[in-house]
Amino acid sequence: MQNLDQLATETADRLEWLAEFGKDPQGGVSRLLYTKEWVEGQNALKEWIESEGLEARFDEVGSLFGTLKGKNTNETVLTGSHVDTVKNGGRFDGAYGIVAGILALKYLKKHFGQPVRNIEVVSMAEEEGSRFPYSFWGSKNIVGIAKREDVENINDFDGVPFVQAMENAGFGFRDESKGPREDLKAFVEVHVEQGSVLETEKISVGVVNNIVGQRRYTVEITGEANHAGTTPMGYRKDAVFAASQMIYEIISMSRETGDPLVTTVGKIEALPNIVNVVPGKAIFTIDVRHTDKEALVAFTEQMTAKMQDISEEHTVEMTIDMWMDEDPVPMNQQVVELIEKQCKDNGLNYKLMHSGAGHDSQIFAPVVPTAMLFVPSLKGISHNPAEFTEPTDLAEGVKALIGALYELGYKE
Amino acid sequence: MQNLDQLATETADRLEWLAEFGKDPQGGVSRLLYTKEWVEGQNALKEWIESEGLEARFDEVGSLFGTLKGKNTNETVLTGSHVDTVKNGGRFDGAYGIVAGILALKYLKKHFGQPVRNIEVVSMAEEEGSRFPYSFWGSKNIVGIAKREDVENINDFDGVPFVQAMENAGFGFRDESKGPREDLKAFVEVHVEQGSVLETEKISVGVVNNIVGQRRYTVEITGEANHAGTTPMGYRKDAVFAASQMIYEIISMSRETGDPLVTTVGKIEALPNIVNVVPGKAIFTIDVRHTDKEALVAFTEQMTAKMQDISEEHTVEMTIDMWMDEDPVPMNQQVVELIEKQCKDNGLNYKLMHSGAGHDSQIFAPVVPTAMLFVPSLKGISHNPAEFTEPTDLAEGVKALIGALYELGYKE
Repeated sequence: MQNLDQLATETADRLEWLAEFGKDPQGGVSRLLYTKEWVEGQNALKEWIESEGLEARFDEVGSLFGTLKGKNTNETVLTGSHVDTVKNGGRFDGAYGIVAGILALKYLKKHFGQPVRNIEVVSMAEEEGSRFPYSFWGSKNIVGIAKREDVENINDFDGVPFVQAMENAGFGFRDESKGPREDLKAFVEVHVEQGSVLETEKISVGVVNNIVGQRRYTVEITGEANHAGTTPMGYRKDAVFAASQMIYEIISMSRETGDPLVTTVGKIEALPNIVNVVPGKAIFTIDVRHTDKEALVAFTEQMTAKMQDISEEHTVEMTIDMWMDEDPVPMNQQVVELIEKQCKDNGLNYKLMHSGAGHDSQIFAPVVPTAMLFVPSLKGISHNPAEFTEPTDLAEGVKALIGALYELGYKE
Repeated sequence: MQNLDQLATETADRLEWLAEFGKDPQGGVSRLLYTKEWVEGQNALKEWIESEGLEARFDEVGSLFGTLKGKNTNETVLTGSHVDTVKNGGRFDGAYGIVAGILALKYLKKHFGQPVRNIEVVSMAEEEGSRFPYSFWGSKNIVGIAKREDVENINDFDGVPFVQAMENAGFGFRDESKGPREDLKAFVEVHVEQGSVLETEKISVGVVNNIVGQRRYTVEITGEANHAGTTPMGYRKDAVFAASQMIYEIISMSRETGDPLVTTVGKIEALPNIVNVVPGKAIFTIDVRHTDKEALVAFTEQMTAKMQDISEEHTVEMTIDMWMDEDPVPMNQQVVELIEKQCKDNGLNYKLMHSGAGHDSQIFAPVVPTAMLFVPSLKGISHNPAEFTEPTDLAEGVKALIGALYELGYKE
């Protein structure tokens, strides 16, 4: 590939530029769905897309598309990611996939002209669920599974209704009587890893073959609140003592089971939460992920049984509520192999890996051949103003994308 | 003893009467230092004391005394407890000691006339620390260890300064240039157990021989916050995982060590406390109590060493801050034996036991021969509107107090 010295600088500069839309005085970027900053960011991206000689359009809900039209306009290869951020997020998560896509299309147009089929970049309206209690609003509308009833009655933390915010931003519901678009032949998403495997192994590009399945639980242990001084140990039903044994044992079990299984107790609360009161209640969450559905189920069954045993030993009550249960989403074998071959042929320093985080790609994968590319994240930091990827690694990711889009878009 | 059938009813009725002062619409009693309800309660007690033919007076800070004068007015036997409550507390904690004292003095005056030395009941201004960040204001002023500088700059949760509240209630600082009173020969406090040992063992009266020492800690574990999905288990410094192992092991160690050692982790917090983020910080409190100083020190040293080992295994940082370190306070051997003998002679169903909670008695004990009497608490409930003791048990406690005060006050 020619003229790629400037690619690192151009990518890094564009990410800083986009980060201005939603720059948060408390740090990082807060560009939430349908806010003023979000509208300005999408409009700025539209201008950039058009300045590169690509056709730009919004869909009904506010995702922005930039198209390099092909000879066959009935087929489209799509790339891109989400334009929204979490509150006080970094400037790479989602944004990098959009910027990489626009730069890839610009490069392909310049060097190879008109492709066989459309090559399109999308800046998806929303993925994070950071403003309203709904996520993947962009991708779910593209593949046609988002429903108006899912969002008609939801509000943000300030009580602003979703529909009002959407209409104030100039957008509206898609026409659910029409089916989703049928021209998509592939979707390739470029994203920052949000983990530290690539950095630790000193590899520049991750070719993603699988997105983990995950199960999330809330566990509530009920013992008996008591005076910390006057209640002998043998009389107690200490909910924190029971919860501690459970957490220690299930995370130990997860570590013994080994990669790629991950288990996290991120949230914990004791009641009444007073230094001199034996806690009568303990509530905690569990987040378990694995690339293999059977393995995920087997582990969570083992985990639940272990917690049941412990609650009985401690004579406390336990309720477990599984409120998220997402299957793993394998990427498309052929697209993955195509990308791998591109990486090899172009001498990129890459490895095959899974994604431990959810992405728009998991929404596309069941209906469109999909794959993802990762670039390293400094110390795995994400959802944080300190999120960072070296410009040279950003460029490697764009190079890998260019190669993939070339294979997918310019070959008959 | 004669005429004790009515004692149960009279005690229970007086506790309900006193509970009206500070009755909280959200439940129970909230009678906090220097509030309007507190002033009204003290004034109502003063009227009752005077109606029984006893001399009533306030000290400078607002503790109320009722005296049955003796032949020798240079010696005084004191009984009583604290008039303040926690927010939404019960009607027995503190109040019972005051009511029992007034009823005991009334009985003794009626049946035995003038004692050898003064017998006095005190309704102490404050003990709980429930309004201002200072506790034992009543007892510490009586024994002369409270200092104006301790409270001059403190405010309650609404920002009201201590001094302003004290002066608005009509009270002020004691004269620190004068030493404390020197006439106290003994102090006997009657209190509800706030535990469930007496109830479980079906015993009516506890003769307290020791108040536990206690040490309280705040422990802060610092690991590394990370993405719950993309961070392999081997890369983590999970502060909640480390904290859970610590809590499980130190409470297990405490249970193995056995009574009277008690260890409680009442408060716990994870940061950032989000379901899908490996917690970078965990903060928890530890409350350890024992009747024997050496045993308390030995256990807490073992506990600290164990936690240090665990933090090293987990490669997390740990800070431990011991912010309370109170020695056990043995009760006076002679007074305890005198009370025990009284209980035996009067056929009371009693046992010797320690107090796992702090009381005004721990403030008196270093300077005045002191002992305590407990009566059972229903299910050990305290600091709660559901706090309860059967009227018959209340009466047993008053009987034991009458016996003790008779021995201490009427014998040469």
